[in-house]
Amino acid sequence: MNINRTTIEQAHERIKPYIHRTPVLTSQSIDDVAGCHVFFKCENFQKVGAFKARGAMNAALSLTEEQLTKGVATHSSGNHAQALARAAKILGVKAYIVMPRTAPEIKKRGVRGYGGEIFECEPTLEARETMLSEVIKKTGATEIHPFNNYEVIAGQATAAVELFEEIKNLDVIMAPVGGGGLLSGTGLAAAYFSPATKVIAGEPEGSDDAYRSMKSGKIEQAQSQTIADGLLTTLGDKTFPIIHELVSEVITSSDAQIIDAMRLVWERMKIIIEPSCAVPLASLLKEKERFKDKRVGIILSGGNVDLERALKLMARK
Amino acid sequence: MNINRTTIEQAHERIKPYIHRTPVLTSQSIDDVAGCHVFFKCENFQKVGAFKARGAMNAALSLTEEQLTKGVATHSSGNHAQALARAAKILGVKAYIVMPRTAPEIKKRGVRGYGGEIFECEPTLEARETMLSEVIKKTGATEIHPFNNYEVIAGQATAAVELFEEIKNLDVIMAPVGGGGLLSGTGLAAAYFSPATKVIAGEPEGSDDAYRSMKSGKIEQAQSQTIADGLLTTLGDKTFPIIHELVSEVITSSDAQIIDAMRLVWERMKIIIEPSCAVPLASLLKEKERFKDKRVGIILSGGNVDLERALKLMARK
Repeated sequence: MNINRTTIEQAHERIKPYIHRTPVLTSQSIDDVAGCHVFFKCENFQKVGAFKARGAMNAALSLTEEQLTKGVATHSSGNHAQALARAAKILGVKAYIVMPRTAPEIKKRGVRGYGGEIFECEPTLEARETMLSEVIKKTGATEIHPFNNYEVIAGQATAAVELFEEIKNLDVIMAPVGGGGLLSGTGLAAAYFSPATKVIAGEPEGSDDAYRSMKSGKIEQAQSQTIADGLLTTLGDKTFPIIHELVSEVITSSDAQIIDAMRLVWERMKIIIEPSCAVPLASLLKEKERFKDKRVGIILSGGNVDLERALKLMARK
Repeated sequence: MNINRTTIEQAHERIKPYIHRTPVLTSQSIDDVAGCHVFFKCENFQKVGAFKARGAMNAALSLTEEQLTKGVATHSSGNHAQALARAAKILGVKAYIVMPRTAPEIKKRGVRGYGGEIFECEPTLEARETMLSEVIKKTGATEIHPFNNYEVIAGQATAAVELFEEIKNLDVIMAPVGGGGLLSGTGLAAAYFSPATKVIAGEPEGSDDAYRSMKSGKIEQAQSQTIADGLLTTLGDKTFPIIHELVSEVITSSDAQIIDAMRLVWERMKIIIEPSCAVPLASLLKEKERFKDKRVGIILSGGNVDLERALKLMARK
């Protein structure tokens, strides 16, 4: 493993001045519904509205002076794009972000708001990778991958570290899984800081590649039949081995269950979470008899959702 | 004044086991919009979803054993009804709640969920008061008024006390004003715990009775032309003198400004607040040049809003 206890502690010290220490919230009425004690680590209140601020900041701060002068680059249409643009702005360097031309205008505005330079491409993985190579060749910038990067993983681990610092004796910690940056970080944090805590992932049924990868022992490809649009990504060759070793289980849930969980959080906790963020709670509720009376930590990954879209999702049922 | 520093400290100790110590959140992007530093005390995360849990709990805990055995009573169609039913449930006594028959079913369910007994009446103030008198005559229960009650006021004061404990050197603290329970409590908390902090109220233009009362020096009647449905109440003879003495100013804002502020909080802070709760921020933003670079505390009073209704309000513009 390239990440040990010290790596994570150093990452935490490094990023602390630039991130929120997010609150841990509880809700009696959700505990009543779930039949267990749930502690929500609210990364939806994090800078840029998602845990991604941690990993991007740690990766940028880990670069050499020389690397930094040439800037950072990534392809992303989501929260990592804003997180990296923000990290670069804080460090006074350039961020080059490759985005599909079909990405929502609000995401592009977010990146530009932090001074990031956007390169638009066709909305295919191949086009994104080709464009990113060209940008890096031209600028000399360092690529910061959204999840398949050890500094990013160590940064994401710090969310669980803070939860373990604040809430003792968790039986279980849950996180959603897309590319696996948050989940592998959470697994490492548990292994080093709370080894008695079991790590369980929540994943949408409609993109259950992590579930299948755990069964087959190799990286399976993601599908994209889910409203949890932050979790459409396939695991990486750096995240999968960590997840395979440290995560007990992946529990999948349906889109209907995800929407129910999302609405429950909005209504009972008065906080806004995006569909992807509701997946671990959906998985917990789906199999709640297994969690009876347990102390369960859930990383609420993010809150970046268009309000009208969210309401439409929740109203449809 | 019937409430002093010790009264408030005792109220705080008394209710602490039964309430959340709610987090204080900040948002860089709201600070950028406002041009000042805003610290939000999140009573939308409080038990029953509103600060009302504090006052009702303190009032119930202040009763004698003998009074308690006969139960508590109030007329309310809002958050106080649930807060009082919850307090009674915790203490194992009866709560008799008079509600207009037109009150939303969800509010009635909330009261019944805490074991409160509902008495329905016609939706007029006279009918409510008549019904409440009858209920009290029959049961011997003690009335706990939603705001015109010193124990309730002392309980509401504890929200500002916690904010002052956590955030030092606030130039201003803001709260919304309806009947004045939260505002008078906030004024007292500032006077005793942070005397250099100016107290400013936010009030909807469409029900600006506190604004007019401050000008005329006597209690003026509330109108009801606003979407901020928690603030339609006229000040009481216990709240008004405290407010008149301790509150610097009432700033009104329009429904359009209230909706803008509400949407800003939902989108930037990822938290759900009800229209009434957005009023102080709306008032601040309306006159933001006066708050430039100041440190401003805002009590976010509650988050009990029907999601569909909220979205409709925010979409209408």
